[in-house]
Amino acid sequence: MKVSFIGLGRMGQVMAGRLLDAGHELMVYNRSPDKAVELARRGAKVAKSLAEASHQGAPVLTMLADDRALNAVTTESGGLIDSLPRQGIHVAMGTHQMDTIQALANAHAAAGQILIAAPVLGRPAVAQAGKLGIIAAGPEQAIQTVQPLFDAIGRRTFAAGTTPSSASLLKLCNNLVLACAIEAMGEAFSLVGKAGVATSSFRDVLTDGLFQCLAYESYSRAIVEGTWDEVNLTATLALKDLRNVLAVAETLKVPLPSANVCRDRLLGAAAQGDAERDWSVMALEQARASGLDRR
Amino acid sequence: MKVSFIGLGRMGQVMAGRLLDAGHELMVYNRSPDKAVELARRGAKVAKSLAEASHQGAPVLTMLADDRALNAVTTESGGLIDSLPRQGIHVAMGTHQMDTIQALANAHAAAGQILIAAPVLGRPAVAQAGKLGIIAAGPEQAIQTVQPLFDAIGRRTFAAGTTPSSASLLKLCNNLVLACAIEAMGEAFSLVGKAGVATSSFRDVLTDGLFQCLAYESYSRAIVEGTWDEVNLTATLALKDLRNVLAVAETLKVPLPSANVCRDRLLGAAAQGDAERDWSVMALEQARASGLDRR
Amino acid sequence: MKVSFIGLGRMGQVMAGRLLDAGHELMVYNRSPDKAVELARRGAKVAKSLAEASHQGAPVLTMLADDRALNAVTTESGGLIDSLPRQGIHVAMGTHQMDTIQALANAHAAAGQILIAAPVLGRPAVAQAGKLGIIAAGPEQAIQTVQPLFDAIGRRTFAAGTTPSSASLLKLCNNLVLACAIEAMGEAFSLVGKAGVATSSFRDVLTDGLFQCLAYESYSRAIVEGTWDEVNLTATLALKDLRNVLAVAETLKVPLPSANVCRDRLLGAAAQGDAERDWSVMALEQARASGLDRR
Amino acid sequence: MKVSFIGLGRMGQVMAGRLLDAGHELMVYNRSPDKAVELARRGAKVAKSLAEASHQGAPVLTMLADDRALNAVTTESGGLIDSLPRQGIHVAMGTHQMDTIQALANAHAAAGQILIAAPVLGRPAVAQAGKLGIIAAGPEQAIQTVQPLFDAIGRRTFAAGTTPSSASLLKLCNNLVLACAIEAMGEAFSLVGKAGVATSSFRDVLTDGLFQCLAYESYSRAIVEGTWDEVNLTATLALKDLRNVLAVAETLKVPLPSANVCRDRLLGAAAQGDAERDWSVMALEQARASGLDRR
Repeated sequence: MKVSFIGLGRMGQVMAGRLLDAGHELMVYNRSPDKAVELARRGAKVAKSLAEASHQGAPVLTMLADDRALNAVTTESGGLIDSLPRQGIHVAMGTHQMDTIQALANAHAAAGQILIAAPVLGRPAVAQAGKLGIIAAGPEQAIQTVQPLFDAIGRRTFAAGTTPSSASLLKLCNNLVLACAIEAMGEAFSLVGKAGVATSSFRDVLTDGLFQCLAYESYSRAIVEGTWDEVNLTATLALKDLRNVLAVAETLKVPLPSANVCRDRLLGAAAQGDAERDWSVMALEQARASGLDRR
Repeated sequence: MKVSFIGLGRMGQVMAGRLLDAGHELMVYNRSPDKAVELARRGAKVAKSLAEASHQGAPVLTMLADDRALNAVTTESGGLIDSLPRQGIHVAMGTHQMDTIQALANAHAAAGQILIAAPVLGRPAVAQAGKLGIIAAGPEQAIQTVQPLFDAIGRRTFAAGTTPSSASLLKLCNNLVLACAIEAMGEAFSLVGKAGVATSSFRDVLTDGLFQCLAYESYSRAIVEGTWDEVNLTATLALKDLRNVLAVAETLKVPLPSANVCRDRLLGAAAQGDAERDWSVMALEQARASGLDRR
Repeated sequence: MKVSFIGLGRMGQVMAGRLLDAGHELMVYNRSPDKAVELARRGAKVAKSLAEASHQGAPVLTMLADDRALNAVTTESGGLIDSLPRQGIHVAMGTHQMDTIQALANAHAAAGQILIAAPVLGRPAVAQAGKLGIIAAGPEQAIQTVQPLFDAIGRRTFAAGTTPSSASLLKLCNNLVLACAIEAMGEAFSLVGKAGVATSSFRDVLTDGLFQCLAYESYSRAIVEGTWDEVNLTATLALKDLRNVLAVAETLKVPLPSANVCRDRLLGAAAQGDAERDWSVMALEQARASGLDRR
Repeated sequence: MKVSFIGLGRMGQVMAGRLLDAGHELMVYNRSPDKAVELARRGAKVAKSLAEASHQGAPVLTMLADDRALNAVTTESGGLIDSLPRQGIHVAMGTHQMDTIQALANAHAAAGQILIAAPVLGRPAVAQAGKLGIIAAGPEQAIQTVQPLFDAIGRRTFAAGTTPSSASLLKLCNNLVLACAIEAMGEAFSLVGKAGVATSSFRDVLTDGLFQCLAYESYSRAIVEGTWDEVNLTATLALKDLRNVLAVAETLKVPLPSANVCRDRLLGAAAQGDAERDWSVMALEQARASGLDRR
């Protein structure tokens, strides 16, 4: 089917490539046109403007780095709000704030257009293998329309209801659970280490037993090996996620004591100069707070 | 090889049975002799007293329900301390407190005997399948001696160093990480539920992605389905575990903020009358604290 | 000395009245002119517009209910930024956010004007008695200039440095310490109550000993008597204060575990429908979390 | 009236001296008889044994350093349980654990004797001035009997009910509230300090306003001046108090999140080597966790 794709960063290029591979008729657009060269070589049409990309009547997928970029692409003159036809579908696949998505949903609705939020779970390598998870929220019929596109990109689509911002919430909550897992490992590894037991043994106990999954395997390795500078997510960005989840929690009146613990641990790490290292520095900061001399 | 086994509760019977199946020459002892009947039928010798069971020179494995039972079996007249020969090996496979194990190690050492602590990870069904994890701590050579017995019982042995109580610590820490995971799920599911999104969708996101492991699969199901009365571990016993891990942490000077959060959540659940339900009531209590009306 | 006063709410009227009583030459302005009638009767001039009030060259004191009102009075056409002469001094005495004050300080500086932030400690009755505390931050010389005005209004001026927003920070921090005191009392009174001891006895122990001060006397009375509906500060507004202090803490990289506890307790209270009661409902919510049946 | 006093440490000597000054007929006993010399000079009789001191039929007051000393004096051969007559009253004025007091109350009851627990609030200088607070719990009539003795020693008696251990609970709770106050100040002073504002200004704001009381005056001074080595209560002993209050809370099913925060802060301080400094090191550890470089 026809589809437009806007935002050819690392993830965007891979995702758009999978649409091409699956035989969809792809038009792409990116601020820096050089990012489109390789996809053009493989058969994609390259739009010269946002307006051209969104005037096809086809669904427009965006994969943008942040809320600012999403707002620019949608609200500026000639942007999606201006140029998408009535009943046109915009699928926002980046990771965006709930209130940004909510405001955008309202703006599209006012223009007679439809917003689906569909943030993805996984990194570029996962995307390349077609194994992304896609958390989709928006009007049911619209999701059915774009399902073939999701099938080309991801392994599985999770239905997150009809309110687009709910998709952002599930992604935030997934990250919250991960933050808590890292903090918990940090606490346990501090105890084990201070008791003089090999942390690698405890890592084996965890990951060979109840916790035989990516979250624990990758982060327990980072903690045991101290690879704080192999950055998956910086402490600064992790703090931003926690700030957002805590803001939602305040609106919904949900106390989140573990989220607070994670936030404080990340702030402590940042106070020691680790803000731009991987957020597994939560465990490093826990170790320091325990009087263990780790760097 | 020759081996004695004391303590034929549900786990003990299965573990002893696997020793038989693997061809070891098994002698068993239990306070209530009826528990030994089935194993005797399958070929085990039945000792009439602790002294008989421990005078063989063979390693003595104990699988006792609690510290009180362990202390009785070891320190009473005719118990293991009395009757085990010098250089005799006692392998304590129950889940016991660190200080109980430490005191017992000292008592055995004073009698020229050797203690290995080897608590197991897994339930009876897991034991039946030979898939227990065994966390072994004690003198290296003694562990090598009993390794064939561990191989008959479990799937994998984790080396937890030469201090027996360290094995207890690793098991406690494993439970701590699990408690934190349940609390984290409780917080996330409260947010998701209060936002009006199906909790089952969020369960799919978690367990299909980073958290595709037993801990998250089983406890997220319990939380989504509210099966608080299918008891795996009562809130009361979970509180005991946390009390123990916090006591060790105090001795070692390790702050454990997440452990505190779990403890408070369990206390809150107990204050609402849920002390004897499954410890997944942590999520129920979190839901109540969030103003969600769950039972 | 000549002085203009803008914002004649309950506090503003009392503060302006004290300036008159001390013999200062007062001009007042208020959106609703009826609020100025009594002060006019006592000798104040009444300005017809913001511009008239701020064109005197005299210091302009504002006592406005919130940031929105402050922004309106300062940035709208004819407002203080427009009409205050170069070197003119604006003393913002309301309780405002740090970033609002910082932005306003920048705007005044760009117009060659001077901002002093001087939030006050105390309620109208305290103001009437001339016993307010005034936390003043801004350029030293400007503070010296307006000191006679502070002396007419308050009992004592606290020097909070030369950055205006620091005055807001000290006020926020004072409230944080108070929130923690209320939470601490809530926890202790829950223990005492659940142990079956009269909470009034414990109140006597506290307030007759180490805690013989207004914070503990007033809030321990509220807790013992359960006067949740005598509102001094609503839980909603207390949450706003905590949100602000936590935002500053995030910027400065300061973990605040007690602030988190207070925030969660207030969220819990709000989740039970107590958002518009007095923030001493922190203790009520603590009691509920402890299984004590209080309303 | 006749009265015996056992335990002539620093506090005990002062308290016994006040009984003499008030004209009571005092008999004293101490393990090290030299501590009794000065009181003997002032008119006290000196008992040669516990039995002699407790055979008078008069109330026996004990002021002992810890639970071990209390247990020795009461349960050893010739101790109070043995030698106090039926209906004899033992007033335990030291600071003891709740379960120690409860066990002792049971033992006295079994011997037909009466226990009053009456821990005091205040240091030796306060005792000298007759300004101690006395928290008294026990049978009402017995308390009435010894009230003249309390009046000689203290300024005020707080009625803590008829269960002796409740007096210990109130004292523990008083300390909990103080711990939370110190933690709260630590957090606020970290924010203020990191924002570059003079901490002494914030101290003035606190102690001149809502917090004009001993707890805040003395500990805010310690924090601003960094007098960690002027020990009032060591971090180690403060941890013991928190352990006890948390143990009671677990029994009563009361979650205590602020107590947990204090405990973790003290553990962090101890992990950095500050266990034997004053417990105001809670604020030092908070400062370190905030990246402030304090010693």
